[in-house]
Amino acid sequence: MKKVAVILSGCGVYDGAEIHESVLTLLHLERHHASYQCFAPDINQHHVIDHLTGDEMAEQRNVLVEAARIARGAIKPLSELSPAGFDAVVLPGGFGAAKNLSDFAFKGADAQVLPELKQCLQAFVSAGKPVGFICIAPAMIPLIYPAPVSLTIGTDADTAEAIEQMGALHVQCQVQDIVIDHQAKVVSTPAYMLAQSVTEASEGIDKLIAALLELA
Amino acid sequence: MKKVAVILSGCGVYDGAEIHESVLTLLHLERHHASYQCFAPDINQHHVIDHLTGDEMAEQRNVLVEAARIARGAIKPLSELSPAGFDAVVLPGGFGAAKNLSDFAFKGADAQVLPELKQCLQAFVSAGKPVGFICIAPAMIPLIYPAPVSLTIGTDADTAEAIEQMGALHVQCQVQDIVIDHQAKVVSTPAYMLAQSVTEASEGIDKLIAALLELA
Repeated sequence: MKKVAVILSGCGVYDGAEIHESVLTLLHLERHHASYQCFAPDINQHHVIDHLTGDEMAEQRNVLVEAARIARGAIKPLSELSPAGFDAVVLPGGFGAAKNLSDFAFKGADAQVLPELKQCLQAFVSAGKPVGFICIAPAMIPLIYPAPVSLTIGTDADTAEAIEQMGALHVQCQVQDIVIDHQAKVVSTPAYMLAQSVTEASEGIDKLIAALLELA
Repeated sequence: MKKVAVILSGCGVYDGAEIHESVLTLLHLERHHASYQCFAPDINQHHVIDHLTGDEMAEQRNVLVEAARIARGAIKPLSELSPAGFDAVVLPGGFGAAKNLSDFAFKGADAQVLPELKQCLQAFVSAGKPVGFICIAPAMIPLIYPAPVSLTIGTDADTAEAIEQMGALHVQCQVQDIVIDHQAKVVSTPAYMLAQSVTEASEGIDKLIAALLELA
């Protein structure tokens, strides 16, 4: 049974991990007979968004503590993620990937990845282990891999342009599909960059998990 | 296409709606070709639990605002739920059902249902419309229906005894199965009262949604 690390970025599409994508990731890992462990960085969220109004709230929340809601408490700090213990990693999307794990939401092509996460993912890459990126999470790929990687964030022209400026090769992709870079062992899918329903997101994530496990 | 109201109780198993059950409910409603609208009461949560440690946090959160995380913002206050506009209702579980929608977690057999919710559900019952209850949510059934209803919360003896004291007929049920009371048009499934995985919860919720839509 292959072991996969799932890296969450909070709990909620506008300031954390996209909840549907995260749950579907766990569901499809189980369906494809992989085991998993969730991780999240023990840092404060960039901010807290009221998901009803879209307004910023005068609160501070911790990424690990909030991500524990999705993981039903079964989560560890990212500092405990050792690439030696896992065959692959997957990162669901949501703005948390672009606000907490990186600052792509604010800086676009000038973004940086959280150093702790960058170091961790580069250890997986060095070990030849595959990584899956969902939704907006692929925006981190050019900051992690040494050579240009083929990836998708769906069809949004501005986002694709920023990612190409960072050195990746953006491939247009529909919601139910995936893009695989076999050389780099990277799989990506648009999910809620395009999805209009849970089932649409589910179809792409299902394929992403299947491809990720095949690369592992 | 049948329209189903989904009533959420926050966002997180220990103080709100169980996230996996909520997402699986939406997924299976789509898979069974129903449309849905999420609702939640605009009230404060009973409390906020740190899902990493299990400790209570010195915070106050609103049930509707937090449930909006699961619904990606597409949620309405429970006060706007009109039974005339829907064919059925479903209530995912999580402690929110027993702490925010009712006080079953604290008072057991002496529990009360949030008056706004009780009135709303009784209007569905009076209209002969079916209701699905997941996980611990079935503990509210005897407080809503006029006559004894057959239901399940799985196999937990203490919880089952409290529910029988309240006047319902508890039926033992495995995680992947459901209990249907055809007379009352009530379907229940244990989900995370018993589930050891997302797929186990998914199987029961899939069957619950199918049965709910058949009763509608």
